[in-house]
Amino acid sequence: MTSTLTSTAHRLDELHRSTDRRDRFRLPAGVVYLDGNSLGALPSAVTAVVTDVVERQWGQDLIASWNTHDWWGAQTRVGDAIGAIVGAAPGQVVCSDSTSVNLFKAIAGAPSLRPGRTVVLTDPDSFPTDLYIAESACRTANLTLELVPPAEAAQRIDELGTDLLVATYSSVDYRTGELWDLPGITRAAHAVGGLVCWDLCHSAGVLDVALDAHEVDLAVGCGYKYLNGGPGAPAFLHVAHRHQGDFRQPLTGWNGHATPFAMSPDYVPAPGISRGRVGTPPLLSMLALEAALTAYDGLGLADLRRRSLSLTGFLLDCLDVLVPDVAVATPREEARRGSQVSLRHPHAYAVVQALIARGVIGDFREPDIVRLGFAPLYLSHADVLRAAEHLAAVLRGGEHTRPEHRARATVT
Amino acid sequence: MTSTLTSTAHRLDELHRSTDRRDRFRLPAGVVYLDGNSLGALPSAVTAVVTDVVERQWGQDLIASWNTHDWWGAQTRVGDAIGAIVGAAPGQVVCSDSTSVNLFKAIAGAPSLRPGRTVVLTDPDSFPTDLYIAESACRTANLTLELVPPAEAAQRIDELGTDLLVATYSSVDYRTGELWDLPGITRAAHAVGGLVCWDLCHSAGVLDVALDAHEVDLAVGCGYKYLNGGPGAPAFLHVAHRHQGDFRQPLTGWNGHATPFAMSPDYVPAPGISRGRVGTPPLLSMLALEAALTAYDGLGLADLRRRSLSLTGFLLDCLDVLVPDVAVATPREEARRGSQVSLRHPHAYAVVQALIARGVIGDFREPDIVRLGFAPLYLSHADVLRAAEHLAAVLRGGEHTRPEHRARATVT
Repeated sequence: MTSTLTSTAHRLDELHRSTDRRDRFRLPAGVVYLDGNSLGALPSAVTAVVTDVVERQWGQDLIASWNTHDWWGAQTRVGDAIGAIVGAAPGQVVCSDSTSVNLFKAIAGAPSLRPGRTVVLTDPDSFPTDLYIAESACRTANLTLELVPPAEAAQRIDELGTDLLVATYSSVDYRTGELWDLPGITRAAHAVGGLVCWDLCHSAGVLDVALDAHEVDLAVGCGYKYLNGGPGAPAFLHVAHRHQGDFRQPLTGWNGHATPFAMSPDYVPAPGISRGRVGTPPLLSMLALEAALTAYDGLGLADLRRRSLSLTGFLLDCLDVLVPDVAVATPREEARRGSQVSLRHPHAYAVVQALIARGVIGDFREPDIVRLGFAPLYLSHADVLRAAEHLAAVLRGGEHTRPEHRARATVT
Repeated sequence: MTSTLTSTAHRLDELHRSTDRRDRFRLPAGVVYLDGNSLGALPSAVTAVVTDVVERQWGQDLIASWNTHDWWGAQTRVGDAIGAIVGAAPGQVVCSDSTSVNLFKAIAGAPSLRPGRTVVLTDPDSFPTDLYIAESACRTANLTLELVPPAEAAQRIDELGTDLLVATYSSVDYRTGELWDLPGITRAAHAVGGLVCWDLCHSAGVLDVALDAHEVDLAVGCGYKYLNGGPGAPAFLHVAHRHQGDFRQPLTGWNGHATPFAMSPDYVPAPGISRGRVGTPPLLSMLALEAALTAYDGLGLADLRRRSLSLTGFLLDCLDVLVPDVAVATPREEARRGSQVSLRHPHAYAVVQALIARGVIGDFREPDIVRLGFAPLYLSHADVLRAAEHLAAVLRGGEHTRPEHRARATVT
């Protein structure tokens, strides 16, 4: 049976040859990296750029680099590069701060776009920072937070009608990998004159998000997962063109001012997406992200989505054959599957550790999730088969019951 | 006369030999860099660290680096290193976000420490981002902002009495280089039971700030000026130990949670200064800053302050001799002088450009300021004399009237 899977892997890798960008990444030998949804692998282009930024731009050209190397334009330039990946035309995305900070801007800024509306809708099972920030932004801006699962969001939006300010959801569930209905929830919010804010942390760079096509109002996301920008790479904020004139956000730092160097005492927001800027951005990290994004050059996200679905689908096929009794938490239906396959196992933590010991790197999420992320740029179907084989060997051999794999590290 | 100045420069450089760290920095040949208050020079230690972070930690060790290289502890570890430089015992400073974002946390968080008080005092001539953020934080948190020059702050605090929530001032005026009375304003605020929040952007790393000794409550500052962390290096937030238990700030990201990986739906702030954390920090920039701070190892800030005063004092002496009619905006009195000398000139922009053409890098600030920052770690008295000589030559030769020096670039 494995020989059939091997030939299928080979055939699928040939079929998706045009979206294989493995040669643009540096990965340790012998590793199958299924954690690109936590920290993307190192793109080869990054090293030379970072060295140049440190030694020549900072070290030699010093303060002049703000002009000569257009450091000043980095936030919108990198924003546009991200925009191209999430389907937003130039001028709608700014690279800035962290996802948490950007979500605060988006939610606390939403009333400027729909004055008088007060209800913010979000997922009770959202990534915790999204919940924490939504609660705090609502408290800060005198809004009412309502927790409604994404599957019920459209109906609740319809009931809320003109009370709805903004529905803010993650496009993909960070635990189960379930893909929520971005177009449907967006349409529902618009039908009552409300807004949406999508968290794209687990979809930017792997799904054909198509923000413009779906008329998404606001979005946020991070730079260090599938966008491969490096640890803690700056995040992004998207504000659709039609909203930018009215959008006001509370983090009114000088970088978002219309004339930052006039040093005027009154805050006048910059025209366009630049009003999402706050303070001076961390340029080593931001320019590393810019270099990383070149791994996407010339790729269509629809093609990459097909590759991603083929990879996750092939894992499910492999599991059917090699580990038929494992519990899969991710929907099998393609339209409901992100670029991730999550398994449930009572000893999930130890399973992840045993896999890591075999060079298959995934991660654990409370309470019982083995989370495998699929970064289609650098993963092959052959990698997927190896991962499935290692998983079968771990479970068959009871490796997850060994004490060294069950002992918890402080941070995972 | 110049020969006297030359021998004085030589004598002073010998006198301050123990605080000369020029060999720990890379600067272009022939440059006198007087812009370390805008972007600090490149410390030699940074290059190897950044390469290691990119190639080995990120590229090879991947997600495991959060534990094996203690990425998770970077924000408080770098915070403590900054704390040592600003006179705060460990556990009171976190490296995070930008100065603007940290100031928002501090001001919007102040009511948690002094419930019921509503007046925030700040400088009408503060660095604009401080004004913008103070206005926005006050609007957000229903506080009243009052603009009072720092010279009048103590008196106004006395009048306000128990209405005072927090007096937030820059320790050094970014334009004139005037050093404000941090101990006096702090005492005045405490006398009425209020708080202070000091912006240390232009004093961290060059003044003996002594936060603990003066019982400062809150402070913020940036990492890319005198701390030499590189372009847009992360900033810092200081919250004194005695306030940490009560301190609540509105940017409640998961990195500031007591148990971030439990993924619990309710926000419980971490104990200690970690509650100042928000999202995942930009580690390339943050670990570059950490490497940069090693240039301070073994130095006492009181000694460095003496060196800084000697450097700025020597510039004033040189100007007296070489350019006696130039208008000096910075107080001559040592107790009122930061690590900066600002000159006023009707063609200040062109003077700065003409100096840059001669390898003396300072910067221009609206409307008429030639701003010369003194980074004592890598500046010598011989450098100072060269700068003064070049300034004399520029003004004598009318170089600042040349069209190429008067044409404004978009960003300076």
